[in-house]
Amino acid sequence: MSSMRAARFYGNRDIRVEDVPVPEPGPGECLVEVEWCGICGSDLHEYAAGPVLMRTTDPETGKPRPIIFGHEFCGRLKSVPEGSKLQVGQAVMVDPHCICRTCLCCTAGNDHICQKLAFLGGSSGKGGGLSEYATVEETHCLPLPENVSLENAAVIEPLVVCHHAAKASGLNLAGLDVLILGGGPVGAALISVLRAHRVGKIILSEPTAKRKEQAKDVVDRVIDPRTEKVGDVCRELTGGKGVDVVFDCAGVQPALEAGFDAIKSTGTFVNVAVWEKPIQIQFLPFFFKEVKIMSSCCYNEQDFKEVMELMAKGKYPNRISLEDTGPKGFEELVNNKDDQIKILISPKIAK
Amino acid sequence: MSSMRAARFYGNRDIRVEDVPVPEPGPGECLVEVEWCGICGSDLHEYAAGPVLMRTTDPETGKPRPIIFGHEFCGRLKSVPEGSKLQVGQAVMVDPHCICRTCLCCTAGNDHICQKLAFLGGSSGKGGGLSEYATVEETHCLPLPENVSLENAAVIEPLVVCHHAAKASGLNLAGLDVLILGGGPVGAALISVLRAHRVGKIILSEPTAKRKEQAKDVVDRVIDPRTEKVGDVCRELTGGKGVDVVFDCAGVQPALEAGFDAIKSTGTFVNVAVWEKPIQIQFLPFFFKEVKIMSSCCYNEQDFKEVMELMAKGKYPNRISLEDTGPKGFEELVNNKDDQIKILISPKIAK
Repeated sequence: MSSMRAARFYGNRDIRVEDVPVPEPGPGECLVEVEWCGICGSDLHEYAAGPVLMRTTDPETGKPRPIIFGHEFCGRLKSVPEGSKLQVGQAVMVDPHCICRTCLCCTAGNDHICQKLAFLGGSSGKGGGLSEYATVEETHCLPLPENVSLENAAVIEPLVVCHHAAKASGLNLAGLDVLILGGGPVGAALISVLRAHRVGKIILSEPTAKRKEQAKDVVDRVIDPRTEKVGDVCRELTGGKGVDVVFDCAGVQPALEAGFDAIKSTGTFVNVAVWEKPIQIQFLPFFFKEVKIMSSCCYNEQDFKEVMELMAKGKYPNRISLEDTGPKGFEELVNNKDDQIKILISPKIAK
Repeated sequence: MSSMRAARFYGNRDIRVEDVPVPEPGPGECLVEVEWCGICGSDLHEYAAGPVLMRTTDPETGKPRPIIFGHEFCGRLKSVPEGSKLQVGQAVMVDPHCICRTCLCCTAGNDHICQKLAFLGGSSGKGGGLSEYATVEETHCLPLPENVSLENAAVIEPLVVCHHAAKASGLNLAGLDVLILGGGPVGAALISVLRAHRVGKIILSEPTAKRKEQAKDVVDRVIDPRTEKVGDVCRELTGGKGVDVVFDCAGVQPALEAGFDAIKSTGTFVNVAVWEKPIQIQFLPFFFKEVKIMSSCCYNEQDFKEVMELMAKGKYPNRISLEDTGPKGFEELVNNKDDQIKILISPKIAK
């Protein structure tokens, strides 16, 4: 067990599956044998337009320092620290966010915005889940409840993102009418979370055919923003007032502007998306509606623990082998996003 | 008393002081003999860059329909409706916002964002305070408390704007450290309001010499954003965390970006300014700090009543004659904003 296969990110559209040493757990760390790992939208950003937040060269030598990709992963414990309550063989979900626990944000319980926030398989430079093994600090190995299989666990991470976004709104969402901009993986996970919060109507604005089709039975109305006026439909469905809350899971300007049209006066606009460009706010609707705009950033330890009990179900159909990470994974998502929601990768299934 | 002098806005940089008929009070309206009227920042916008929100032509005939300018005004009642509790001769402050009282916002107590919101001396098309007389609905004629003279009353309106902004933040402001962007009339009024809320430190970012000088004794620190880094100074003054709240009374992009640098994680950014361009939000600080952004729009009836009891004091030194509205009023504010905070105009003093 001295070497393993791993998908490493070298830079723009350059992922290589290679033999690398199995990582050595440090003090307080477990070795996790990866079962499933998802490709996140932020991974895609790095792959297609990056490196953005990741450092793929050594800052001192300037030499390549490829990163083992993937932060949405689960697996079984291969080793645990001495005296741990965890057990070898136990199925765990990994909380992949890396925090300092000492900054003003961490000590205030806001470790999701830790001043040194980073991710396994990402900006931390530490290896992630697109590999056979990964080292993870013990407190971030979360034992799966009995009713959750490893096969379903890797999709927990997007649910945690949405769980945090619902809390970040600062609202009691029960009964409120909601517009979701964008029906990708986060938009889809958000539907489950919002149902658990017993919101009123859920309206989804999504232009692509497959995603519209997948969502139509689980929301009150799907709007195609290319053929319908989002604001008009929302007002029609809400007795003229507009939606109480907009969750932006799209991160593009036309969607935001449709959201500002659809939102009621004094409504709340929650950004969950990663934007590649600055956000433009038109002054008049912002001012005369007194819209509150907020962003939700990732999740904290508490969010992750809460969702482990929530265990909502999503529809994440595509599972491929680690060997196919590049062509069947990232390229597929970049080129055929209409046909894919989420791709899960296993180092354990054959090519 | 069949005709009066009035300053009418015809369009861009075109204000004419003319003889016009004294307006006839309609049912439920008082006739107010104007004592003082302030020039508001929004009046300046209309004068220098407008018409923006005002209609200075008749929509049916296309003919000029000049508007008697001015919505920050006070005076004495010349006539009251039959059976009114108000008395002829009584000194009143005018609440100049015009509302429908029937829309979803009005019936929810949010008449500051009434769907038909307009202003006397502004977008309503009804005459304002830059004249000898104006008609005002009875409920918007607010008797002055004994300790407030008519000379001080006209500056109440900017205080009400700030009173609403403090409430719109949604925060208990006591003890919180605040950065104000822009030390114009609204920024100056905000200082008084925030002191009444017993905030922690008040830091003002203001580049012009006279405004800096005027503010330096009433705030904890004045920053010149042209020579100092606003974020660095704010962190230094707040033990490294940054300010809890930013109030934007500037409405320009560089100020906003300094504010986003200066604000703490999870801080609140309240816009009080009128922007001439769309607002650009840089994604990373918005996202990784989870900044909440909100706008404060005008004020409602409740705000106005509350401030009538608050009666904070400002420094509004310049008082001129109605006849000089154009050259000594608007042109002076457009051309010499460094030397002016607020100009008050009286139809009763000689040129």
